[in-house]
Amino acid sequence: MINEKLLRPDSIAVIGASNNISKPGGKIVKNLIEHSFPGKLYLVNPKDQEIQGMKSYKQANDLPQVDLAILAIPARFCLETVKILAEKKSTKAFIVLSAGFGETSDEGKELEQEIVDVVNRHNACLIGPNCIGVMTPHHASVFTTPVPKLTPAGCDFISGSGATAVFIMESGIPKGLRFANVFSVGNSAQTGVEDVLAYLDETFDENASSRVKLLYIENIDDPDKLLYHASSLINKGCKIAAIKAGSSQAGSRAASSHTGALTSSDAAVEALFRKAGIVRCYGREELTTLANVFMCKELKGEKLAIITHAGGPGVMLTDALEDGGLQIPRIEDSPAKDALKEKLFPGSSVENPIDFLATGTAAQLGKIVDACEHDFDVDGMAVIFGSPGLFPIRDVYEVLDKKMQTCKKPVYPILPSIINVKEDVAYFLSHGNVNFPDEVLLGKALTKVINTPEPASNEIYVKDINVDAIGRILNESQNGYQPPEIIHRLFDAAGIPRVEEIVAKNEKEAVLAAMKIGFPVVMKVVGPVHKTDVGGVVLNVRNAEEVRKEFHHLNEIDGVEGVLIAQMASGTELFLGATYEENFGHIVLCGMGGIYVEVLKDVASGLAPLSHEEAMSMLRQLKSYKLMQGYRKQEGINIPQFADIIVRLSSLLRFATEIKELDINPLLGNEKEILAVDARIRVEK
Amino acid sequence: MINEKLLRPDSIAVIGASNNISKPGGKIVKNLIEHSFPGKLYLVNPKDQEIQGMKSYKQANDLPQVDLAILAIPARFCLETVKILAEKKSTKAFIVLSAGFGETSDEGKELEQEIVDVVNRHNACLIGPNCIGVMTPHHASVFTTPVPKLTPAGCDFISGSGATAVFIMESGIPKGLRFANVFSVGNSAQTGVEDVLAYLDETFDENASSRVKLLYIENIDDPDKLLYHASSLINKGCKIAAIKAGSSQAGSRAASSHTGALTSSDAAVEALFRKAGIVRCYGREELTTLANVFMCKELKGEKLAIITHAGGPGVMLTDALEDGGLQIPRIEDSPAKDALKEKLFPGSSVENPIDFLATGTAAQLGKIVDACEHDFDVDGMAVIFGSPGLFPIRDVYEVLDKKMQTCKKPVYPILPSIINVKEDVAYFLSHGNVNFPDEVLLGKALTKVINTPEPASNEIYVKDINVDAIGRILNESQNGYQPPEIIHRLFDAAGIPRVEEIVAKNEKEAVLAAMKIGFPVVMKVVGPVHKTDVGGVVLNVRNAEEVRKEFHHLNEIDGVEGVLIAQMASGTELFLGATYEENFGHIVLCGMGGIYVEVLKDVASGLAPLSHEEAMSMLRQLKSYKLMQGYRKQEGINIPQFADIIVRLSSLLRFATEIKELDINPLLGNEKEILAVDARIRVEK
Repeated sequence: MINEKLLRPDSIAVIGASNNISKPGGKIVKNLIEHSFPGKLYLVNPKDQEIQGMKSYKQANDLPQVDLAILAIPARFCLETVKILAEKKSTKAFIVLSAGFGETSDEGKELEQEIVDVVNRHNACLIGPNCIGVMTPHHASVFTTPVPKLTPAGCDFISGSGATAVFIMESGIPKGLRFANVFSVGNSAQTGVEDVLAYLDETFDENASSRVKLLYIENIDDPDKLLYHASSLINKGCKIAAIKAGSSQAGSRAASSHTGALTSSDAAVEALFRKAGIVRCYGREELTTLANVFMCKELKGEKLAIITHAGGPGVMLTDALEDGGLQIPRIEDSPAKDALKEKLFPGSSVENPIDFLATGTAAQLGKIVDACEHDFDVDGMAVIFGSPGLFPIRDVYEVLDKKMQTCKKPVYPILPSIINVKEDVAYFLSHGNVNFPDEVLLGKALTKVINTPEPASNEIYVKDINVDAIGRILNESQNGYQPPEIIHRLFDAAGIPRVEEIVAKNEKEAVLAAMKIGFPVVMKVVGPVHKTDVGGVVLNVRNAEEVRKEFHHLNEIDGVEGVLIAQMASGTELFLGATYEENFGHIVLCGMGGIYVEVLKDVASGLAPLSHEEAMSMLRQLKSYKLMQGYRKQEGINIPQFADIIVRLSSLLRFATEIKELDINPLLGNEKEILAVDARIRVEK
Repeated sequence: MINEKLLRPDSIAVIGASNNISKPGGKIVKNLIEHSFPGKLYLVNPKDQEIQGMKSYKQANDLPQVDLAILAIPARFCLETVKILAEKKSTKAFIVLSAGFGETSDEGKELEQEIVDVVNRHNACLIGPNCIGVMTPHHASVFTTPVPKLTPAGCDFISGSGATAVFIMESGIPKGLRFANVFSVGNSAQTGVEDVLAYLDETFDENASSRVKLLYIENIDDPDKLLYHASSLINKGCKIAAIKAGSSQAGSRAASSHTGALTSSDAAVEALFRKAGIVRCYGREELTTLANVFMCKELKGEKLAIITHAGGPGVMLTDALEDGGLQIPRIEDSPAKDALKEKLFPGSSVENPIDFLATGTAAQLGKIVDACEHDFDVDGMAVIFGSPGLFPIRDVYEVLDKKMQTCKKPVYPILPSIINVKEDVAYFLSHGNVNFPDEVLLGKALTKVINTPEPASNEIYVKDINVDAIGRILNESQNGYQPPEIIHRLFDAAGIPRVEEIVAKNEKEAVLAAMKIGFPVVMKVVGPVHKTDVGGVVLNVRNAEEVRKEFHHLNEIDGVEGVLIAQMASGTELFLGATYEENFGHIVLCGMGGIYVEVLKDVASGLAPLSHEEAMSMLRQLKSYKLMQGYRKQEGINIPQFADIIVRLSSLLRFATEIKELDINPLLGNEKEILAVDARIRVEK
């Protein structure tokens, strides 16, 4: 696992150092030298005595003690070298750039594991193999360019792909994005994205650590770890944006059941990110734009002022922000507004957007920003200022730079003229600022941030949930779809309200059951999975004679195992279901039943266990939420109770990972109460 | 209106030419000289005898004949100068850069109009005032930079805002976007965006004209003209992408009626663009990315191959494309596939994405592109090739460039390493290619293109529609909400089927009407707008006695004008409505009735008149379309008839612009027929 020797080594050895800077072993030496690694740098190469002007050792054995070793040698030599370094040179951190391991063959996979074993035995850290390296403010141990400005004020970036990391940096750097630590985890043999994040969480220093984390992930191996540490970091004041590539792959998964058709492993990722409070991105440009939003001060509200010297971009930004739920409120009349207007040229507008015209000056911009900071009721500002190329606008960017340092509200700079005033933009960025060259991409990023919830509580709701009983019931259960008794007992143990149901084996039992429950009753066949398709459900059975008649009818259905006599409930149909995703746990889905789920796909999802707030937030996401509240003459449902049932179900599932599939379809509800009417549970131990 | 003298003048005079190139009058001269205007250039300035090394005239009067005049003088001098030039120098084209006209004051507006009058009197063309100018392959008559490479192979760009035009070019140029003609229309005093588009349509030359048109629009003054010429150009093989800024303004419109709450002027823009076949964009980056898609060969299908040397971007592009409805099909096994695989390094994948690894070569890329062009069942290719900065990759881009010229299928180049191989990317662009630095932005643009329909037919459906009768009925109608008789006659004239209805003034008439229609009937109050809210609708009235009783009841409601006896229809509730937008005409809205429209907002819109194809496409857009088709045991509706009713209603409206608001709510339908049950029409003449 990651340690200080990786981040702040006193000495680094490059094994496979080269004079050829078009090779990884040459380029990484060049990067280390050019970016002034302050410690001791040792180079190892069997042929050359001097590499890039420095002494070179013939073999690893000849080296003195070394903290961090970087291997840029063929895969087959790596194990031996790691052994020598770990055993004789007390090396505690390894970066293996070499490819040819687990990504190419089973033998490679074994070799990789042997290296991991050695590294683990010595309580050391391994990054890679098959990676581009690691950069920190102390050393640029990568064989690629560009090497961005590395500063503790930059963002931390962890990438599951080396090339993609390069392309993401190339997208961010022209916009002024700076980096603190960059990790390319390669094959994640010992240390994956989640492990790096865990380290950043465990060693988080309020005064020194970066508050912005970017992730590029191709596989989530340990969702729990990701969830835990991402939530923890965000609760400590960090911001996290992440790409999880491969969302479309999910479409290929066979959907064996009703619920399965509505979920997917992408739904699991979505649910995980939302629970953790991670802002999900889908592309490089989006990720780096989001990173730049995070590099600005935090927007603590939803009201923005748009300050512009050109109408069009101001309007487009207004559209994008309002579309995403932010507000561009009219600036209310006040002496401050009048005073500001007097300082601007005639024709300027001090509504919002605040348009100070193509002729607007640096001094005017300063006055506007001051008014937005001190006088106007807004939570932040977007400043649009480009140039038609007539004269330099350095003075404007100087003012903007100064104001950004002193303002407590966030200021988002939109400098679109990346050709006309290239040097002025570069000057602005050189002061540590970011730029959003496209206002609409900024607008979308900002609304994504505003619409990402806080991390959910990670406590499991257990009040009145009989955890021991759940374990016992599942122990007794068989694999496959569960009989009504098991379902009843599980629901009762979790406190999920349900209609009264009794299984009858014969006519007499059926009549007694119906009398006990009270007429009218519903009768359902027990056994076949899709009851309705085989005519296995009879509603509104009104007396003993009808019970007898329907019992005979149902008893003739193929695969019948009994007949269920149930309380006849009525109300609005609701749906609640869950699927189990390997590693993730249960994805819980809810919505209104029938066509709302099946045709309109109006379903919300969340990752179990869920808090009451999460359950309410899932319900509020639904388009049919308004119907649940009661619409016109139609009665609504008891929404807090539905949320409570969702929470209880999610707790039940958390203690019942053997449940691989669960549908309650329908529940029936009115303003007073909600009851589970029919349910299906599949167990796989 | 635009003429040849604007586009290809033999002579240009700059009035207000200056030596100071930080002023418009100086910079425009510099641009004209630097971009080698091949004709005669005259400069006018009262003070200096020489401007930028050229002779300067004291006043316009001293000039010889001149084709195009550019005015960069204070607004107050413009009218006089235009008069001199138009009257004495037979100048036929004017570009007025000067501000201080209609955008600042009423006097400015008058002055602007006087200039327009002079220009029109001489059958000349006026661009501006308050604009940055015009660029064509013949002359760069703008006072701004950058001046892009102007070539007939570039795109035509018309902008309603000068600064925004500059920023859009700055967004496009680094991605290789080239321009043919650029028009900044400023105040559009004589010539607006629609007029320029009309000219480009009327003078379209299959062999010489650009096939890509970009629009930045802030106001659509003449929607009909825009629709007509955009459709016409697209039908001639052009592609059009446009930003209409100000979509969020629409939210502020008061929504006075049911339908009004669902539409807005932004819905009108949306409907207009869809009808015209224009791809709608919301930001500069999006517009220029789309323009670059259009600059590539046309994608004639939905199957793309993704060719990449890095996994991550390939996966993200796959996600974006599949999410938008394009396919990344698996490459089927074949000898060609085997042969290709042999030419690639071990570990390469010839599935799709085709991943030829970080070590992939130029020669291999050539083979892959050839296979996709000739052997594999795909309609186009996206090629991702960046660099970690180890060595130049010029050879790869040379191959890509060559292949792009010979391939008949479109090839979309994604070159993300805009820092590492900046020069190689510049080389690639210098050959006239475009670049998509971000694969996901490309993916979104491509799916937007694929999901934009063809222009709709502009014929009005008139079969069995009695246009004369519609005119007569409206002539007889009064302003305000219409009585049932008028509604019946209008629907009958348009062939819109409706339930039988008779208005009764007294008890006896009511009973007779009910007997004529046949029991059971529905009784409704005539007069108050919101019938249901005042208890003015009684369903299922079964006999004469009940008719009498209900008549008395209804007759007591405030504002009653009569009682309507109607056929009792049943079936699925449908909704059809329309609002009138100034200039645009009628926006027709359709959907399933009740909660589908009111709560779930499942409504499709289209601009009248509509063709049958458009009506069907509107219906298919609805989430509830599946319910209309019949879902499980629930009967569907006669969808072709619903489409027919939509078309007829849209034709009716086209001949009845006096109708400002119309709701048919509900129609009731089953698999056999659909009948309008209740309707409200507001006329305003």
